[in-house]
Amino acid sequence: QTPLTVDDIAQWAATELEPEVWDFVCGGAGDESTLQLNRTDLANIRLVPRVLRDVAHPSTHTTLLGTPAAMPVAVAPMAYQRLIHPHGELAVARACKRAGIPFTVSALTSTPIDQLAATGATLWAQLYWFTDRARVGELLTQAEQAGCRAVVLSVDMPRMGRRLRDIRNDFTLPAGLASGADAAGLAAAGTRPGSSIARHTDTIMDAQLNWDDIEWLSRQTVLPVVLKGILDARDAALAAEFGVDAIVVSNHGGRQFDGAPSTIGALPAVLDAVADRCPVLIDSGFRSGLDILRAMALGAGGVLLGRPILYGLVGGERGVELTLSVLREELLDAMTHTGCADLRAAADLASVISEGLLPAPAALT
Amino acid sequence: QTPLTVDDIAQWAATELEPEVWDFVCGGAGDESTLQLNRTDLANIRLVPRVLRDVAHPSTHTTLLGTPAAMPVAVAPMAYQRLIHPHGELAVARACKRAGIPFTVSALTSTPIDQLAATGATLWAQLYWFTDRARVGELLTQAEQAGCRAVVLSVDMPRMGRRLRDIRNDFTLPAGLASGADAAGLAAAGTRPGSSIARHTDTIMDAQLNWDDIEWLSRQTVLPVVLKGILDARDAALAAEFGVDAIVVSNHGGRQFDGAPSTIGALPAVLDAVADRCPVLIDSGFRSGLDILRAMALGAGGVLLGRPILYGLVGGERGVELTLSVLREELLDAMTHTGCADLRAAADLASVISEGLLPAPAALT
Amino acid sequence: QTPLTVDDIAQWAATELEPEVWDFVCGGAGDESTLQLNRTDLANIRLVPRVLRDVAHPSTHTTLLGTPAAMPVAVAPMAYQRLIHPHGELAVARACKRAGIPFTVSALTSTPIDQLAATGATLWAQLYWFTDRARVGELLTQAEQAGCRAVVLSVDMPRMGRRLRDIRNDFTLPAGLASGADAAGLAAAGTRPGSSIARHTDTIMDAQLNWDDIEWLSRQTVLPVVLKGILDARDAALAAEFGVDAIVVSNHGGRQFDGAPSTIGALPAVLDAVADRCPVLIDSGFRSGLDILRAMALGAGGVLLGRPILYGLVGGERGVELTLSVLREELLDAMTHTGCADLRAAADLASVISEGLLPAPAALT
Amino acid sequence: QTPLTVDDIAQWAATELEPEVWDFVCGGAGDESTLQLNRTDLANIRLVPRVLRDVAHPSTHTTLLGTPAAMPVAVAPMAYQRLIHPHGELAVARACKRAGIPFTVSALTSTPIDQLAATGATLWAQLYWFTDRARVGELLTQAEQAGCRAVVLSVDMPRMGRRLRDIRNDFTLPAGLASGADAAGLAAAGTRPGSSIARHTDTIMDAQLNWDDIEWLSRQTVLPVVLKGILDARDAALAAEFGVDAIVVSNHGGRQFDGAPSTIGALPAVLDAVADRCPVLIDSGFRSGLDILRAMALGAGGVLLGRPILYGLVGGERGVELTLSVLREELLDAMTHTGCADLRAAADLASVISEGLLPAPAALT
Ligand SMILES: Cc1cc2nc3c(=O)[nH]c(=O)nc-3n(C[C@H](O)[C@H](O)[C@H](O)COP(=O)(O)O)c2cc1C
Ligand SMILES: Cc1cc2nc3c(=O)[nH]c(=O)nc-3n(C[C@H](O)[C@H](O)[C@H](O)COP(=O)(O)O)c2cc1C
Ligand SMILES: Cc1cc2nc3c(=O)[nH]c(=O)nc-3n(C[C@H](O)[C@H](O)[C@H](O)COP(=O)(O)O)c2cc1C
Ligand SMILES: Cc1cc2nc3c(=O)[nH]c(=O)nc-3n(C[C@H](O)[C@H](O)[C@H](O)COP(=O)(O)O)c2cc1C
Repeated sequence: QTPLTVDDIAQWAATELEPEVWDFVCGGAGDESTLQLNRTDLANIRLVPRVLRDVAHPSTHTTLLGTPAAMPVAVAPMAYQRLIHPHGELAVARACKRAGIPFTVSALTSTPIDQLAATGATLWAQLYWFTDRARVGELLTQAEQAGCRAVVLSVDMPRMGRRLRDIRNDFTLPAGLASGADAAGLAAAGTRPGSSIARHTDTIMDAQLNWDDIEWLSRQTVLPVVLKGILDARDAALAAEFGVDAIVVSNHGGRQFDGAPSTIGALPAVLDAVADRCPVLIDSGFRSGLDILRAMALGAGGVLLGRPILYGLVGGERGVELTLSVLREELLDAMTHTGCADLRAAADLASVISEGLLPAPAALT
Repeated sequence: QTPLTVDDIAQWAATELEPEVWDFVCGGAGDESTLQLNRTDLANIRLVPRVLRDVAHPSTHTTLLGTPAAMPVAVAPMAYQRLIHPHGELAVARACKRAGIPFTVSALTSTPIDQLAATGATLWAQLYWFTDRARVGELLTQAEQAGCRAVVLSVDMPRMGRRLRDIRNDFTLPAGLASGADAAGLAAAGTRPGSSIARHTDTIMDAQLNWDDIEWLSRQTVLPVVLKGILDARDAALAAEFGVDAIVVSNHGGRQFDGAPSTIGALPAVLDAVADRCPVLIDSGFRSGLDILRAMALGAGGVLLGRPILYGLVGGERGVELTLSVLREELLDAMTHTGCADLRAAADLASVISEGLLPAPAALT
Repeated sequence: QTPLTVDDIAQWAATELEPEVWDFVCGGAGDESTLQLNRTDLANIRLVPRVLRDVAHPSTHTTLLGTPAAMPVAVAPMAYQRLIHPHGELAVARACKRAGIPFTVSALTSTPIDQLAATGATLWAQLYWFTDRARVGELLTQAEQAGCRAVVLSVDMPRMGRRLRDIRNDFTLPAGLASGADAAGLAAAGTRPGSSIARHTDTIMDAQLNWDDIEWLSRQTVLPVVLKGILDARDAALAAEFGVDAIVVSNHGGRQFDGAPSTIGALPAVLDAVADRCPVLIDSGFRSGLDILRAMALGAGGVLLGRPILYGLVGGERGVELTLSVLREELLDAMTHTGCADLRAAADLASVISEGLLPAPAALT
Repeated sequence: QTPLTVDDIAQWAATELEPEVWDFVCGGAGDESTLQLNRTDLANIRLVPRVLRDVAHPSTHTTLLGTPAAMPVAVAPMAYQRLIHPHGELAVARACKRAGIPFTVSALTSTPIDQLAATGATLWAQLYWFTDRARVGELLTQAEQAGCRAVVLSVDMPRMGRRLRDIRNDFTLPAGLASGADAAGLAAAGTRPGSSIARHTDTIMDAQLNWDDIEWLSRQTVLPVVLKGILDARDAALAAEFGVDAIVVSNHGGRQFDGAPSTIGALPAVLDAVADRCPVLIDSGFRSGLDILRAMALGAGGVLLGRPILYGLVGGERGVELTLSVLREELLDAMTHTGCADLRAAADLASVISEGLLPAPAALT
């Protein structure tokens, strides 16, 4: 039967993917408590609907980092998408183009960024702070040449999160997904038990990354600079002071530091600290149009979507389109039922925290 | 064995009804989290009993929208009741007549309102804001002619809630329940997968409904105008300013916007905002006399009952009578044990919120 | 194996008793939510132990309603104890005598009070407000003649609680437990389905009971008058104003009004309202020495024990002794570990409410 | 497969140990609610990570009671370690030496302290307040001769906790673990049902212990005096006034008073009361590097580890090393991900309490 929800799509992906690939995608760090909390805290936010406000033609349109978007949604940067489907990033970018939303190219993309640019999708380029600084420069140049609209530096990867599933699975990337030095590093890392992705990633990341580097990066590029992975309000304030163009409140979908609060729980203090000096996007745990509306009601400027896209990608471009159309339909539905003709209205919704709902079980999706 | 509680009656209905009819009746929108929260939040309200107050003859009598009622209860508007039992609305109206409580005729009644008027029950007429405005006028005229005591405009139906059960069941109304244009529309909608009720409903509802229309409606009829489906205190205040005669705090029994707070959770702020300018009724999730007393203790003017009536209707008029007599007996019991000789005393009960109770499992009823 | 806890004793009783007798004893009213909440709220009270306070010889001694008691515990009034064991109240009274604690004789005792007086136990006499006022007078006279030290009027029985287990079980007392008019009434009530105890009880209780009757009662007897079944702080204040000698914060072990708060939750506000004008005892849900210490730490003057006594009674006098010795041992243990050499020290313990504990499952005991 | 977490190690130990030894080690007092709460309350503390702070070389080094330590961790005093593995305390001390952390020798050590001193590990000597005061003096002398750096008086053992598992198991120590009077006492106690350890322990502990004895003890030794087992802030303030050199906030891992709050819950008030007059260590329920960081973030000076060490000890010295290296690796991981280059930074982390997480089930570890 046609999937009606992201959960349906996830369940389908769970049966289609190799178990260790599924684990790599859906899993989180440590006890996966942050993974779970992202879901629980979202579910407990109740939005109080408004009525009698003419919602015959609700519009989900907005602007994300200066570019118009058909919904307040972008695809989050995710590595090695050809792991899920041979068309990988290409399929996702095409679906984004059609849906009218930005696609963030991972620093560990398994498809060259120029091929993705050819799809016509709005692209953002994600950076990791590689020890090999030349590679950072290269990524920047490629991003600018590919016409990317923003550079998204992920600041929550001083090292790989302790993802127990991958370690227990001795998880290794199939050959052919990475290129150049990465391919060699991964191959080398793959010869011992444990997660070879983790081992390789740890060798290439530069944990020295600090605010001085942000200044350097800003001077290095004409593109707007976005910091992804902020949770503490003091860091958000610093980001605003350093003049970054946007931040993404993220706990990397519970994949890095198990012990972090949920992002939706962290959002209000971050918004306070930023005080409108730059847009505040959010990700981690968003699984429905209702979840997206929750973020907008609390004041986010937009939502990045991670795993739901990869679940859809199991079905290639059509699958990603399905995910996006489910989310769009759900968002429209939620807006209509809450009396929001547009997203400005969403920001005015009242919300209450319920503790009456059972926490989600260490969840499938 | 004789059912002792509404849950007993629900369990009996669950076995008697076709699975997809059961799903249509008991189900809610989305993840059914609002459905669940309605129950949990009620259960966690603890009423502190008073003692030594002569409760030999407790009275449940009250006045609802100006008409005396034997208990602070009315039957909520519910569409297509012949789906449950051949006697449909007629059986319910007769049981209401006998129990001395009002019956709200749905805009989508499967029995003509004049036949219901013949039962002698106190009738209220529910309206939906149909795109076909003539039909609204027609319903108004019929309501007045049938001697209805109030018009209840449901303002939470800009579109049909995303009821996944019905969509998965390809739920279609059996022929013969609806009449005229509706019958044709439903038949047409029934030829594709998904919920044909949802598809049809969406085509007939006018999502443009707004406060101007309320003014129009008030001018259109001499009957008291009630708005059903208010949750935000700001809307409640607006309703009072617009001079409506009553409001019903309702989330449509969790059938429309999954993500809404419980109605009992929303009630206090609504009461504050209304500040006695009009009566505030409530529905959604009430399953016992104790639940009814909870609403009265928190300041509601009365409770509308939805599904419990339909569960009883499985047994026709006698079944509805059973439901109502269980509720009346439970209400009397709760009043007696809390020292309330009448409903004014109920409003003076102290209540505390407990978080010690397990949330109800995504519940059967 | 020797039972170590009241739960062990309850489990043993559950296997020994006829299922419908077990249900009558352990069950509560309605959904048994108050029954459950009594347990959950107690479990969530954490006592902060003191150290270095010489607890080599902790003493559990205290005074209850003016009489010395070996622990701050009395047996609660419970009807028809010969239902559990042929020696019924006699066995319990003997165990109380030996343990040095008061025994409250139920108004519905299945053993004449003069026989109980012969055990030498400290007796309190519980009254219900029977429509047959002569019977109340008779109970008073008997109580005084039997040397009772107090009269305990239960004010939470305007009618019998809706105990669904008993109704579903068509629960009837075996002949020979009640005497006189009661025996006849019970026999008559026993011929129809449902709970015949409930039916009979409802015919004999006078729901007109009010504060005027308290004045009458106080004039009628020289014994201290105790009101059992207070939960609202306003009623507690009234009781103090009316000069009663003590109150018992009780929800009748969850057997009367399902919907009430836990007694331990209600205690602090009651204590505030009473402001030391009379002792405040408590019951409902106490199952361990630790629970008893919790009540004392929160300011109670003593604890009445209900079901744990009846569970022990399955083994006759020895069984009740076992229950009492388990509780005494646990109380001593808890006092020692919290640095309380006596019960005055207990009142000085700090407590915190934890919400981290799973609510007890709708519990066996 | 290599254990990745303390839980893995615990599960392995659960299969290796005799059931009644496992119960003795992992179990707690009473209902084990304090045992459970220690875990739940820790899990619900969410640490808000900082970013962009150069964590290329995070250091876990600190000073514990004046001695440098490679991590803010010491092994808690635990009796009779040869119960777990023939090498007992020797294996643990060696692993501590290698890991660069202190080992606390239990007053009931099954290996003479001079043999442990020979390992070169930093030793602390734990005392119980034995009725046989000569033995206390002897332990002190031995401790000083063995070069111990501190004396840790456990003040939460006025009597043995009610550990139901041990009582039900008739738990008896195998011969040969204890020496001298203890061996004789244990043998004598072992002849009856119930826990012979409990029976024996109760005979040797002096419950008269009070603050005067602390003064005596301080005069008796040149070593720093630490009080272990403080939970109430008033006792913490007294300890500071009495000039003790450190305190350990402990509920003895839930083994003594079931009903106590979690230690992490008690810590903030204790820190307030102590106001930096002495270091405040903590133990009970710590199972991961993340848990350790939680304590440091809340202001603790270090963490004592109990059961995780014994679980590892099942594999002898290597097993303990494994436990310690898992914890060290997790701590480094947590520090890196929260932007803490050293432990001073940890104290500056923001934390939030989540109630969204399911309480741990009455847990295995
Ligand atoms: C398989 C996978 C790979 C990811 N790879 C990257 C990456 O290369 N760079 C990055 O910044 N974030 C990466 N992320 C994190 C996402 O950008 C995003 O923060 C996270 O997925 C959001 O949570 P959600 O999956 O619950 O929506 C990855 C996430 C997943 C699931
Ligand atoms: C089967 C069904 C049909 C309904 N039809 C209508 C309707 O036609 N008009 C309306 O205003 N509300 C309708 N409702 C909502 C009810 O009026 C009411 O708000 C809701 O049932 C209250 O929640 P409860 O079922 O938990 O008591 C319907 C509810 C059910 C269960
Ligand atoms: C089987 C049974 C019979 C009882 N009968 C009486 C009674 O005759 N009079 C009365 O005042 N309370 C009666 N009670 C209530 C007890 O006095 C007491 O309030 C209650 O049992 C306390 O709760 P617990 O059982 O959880 O300890 C009865 C309780 C039980 C369980
Ligand atoms: C088997 C065992 C034996 C113990 N023996 C002692 C002891 O002899 N002296 C002492 O002060 N604490 C003793 N403890 C308590 C520990 O020092 C420590 O407070 C507790 O284990 C910390 O909790 P955790 O096990 O959850 O880490 C013992 C604990 C265990 C598990």
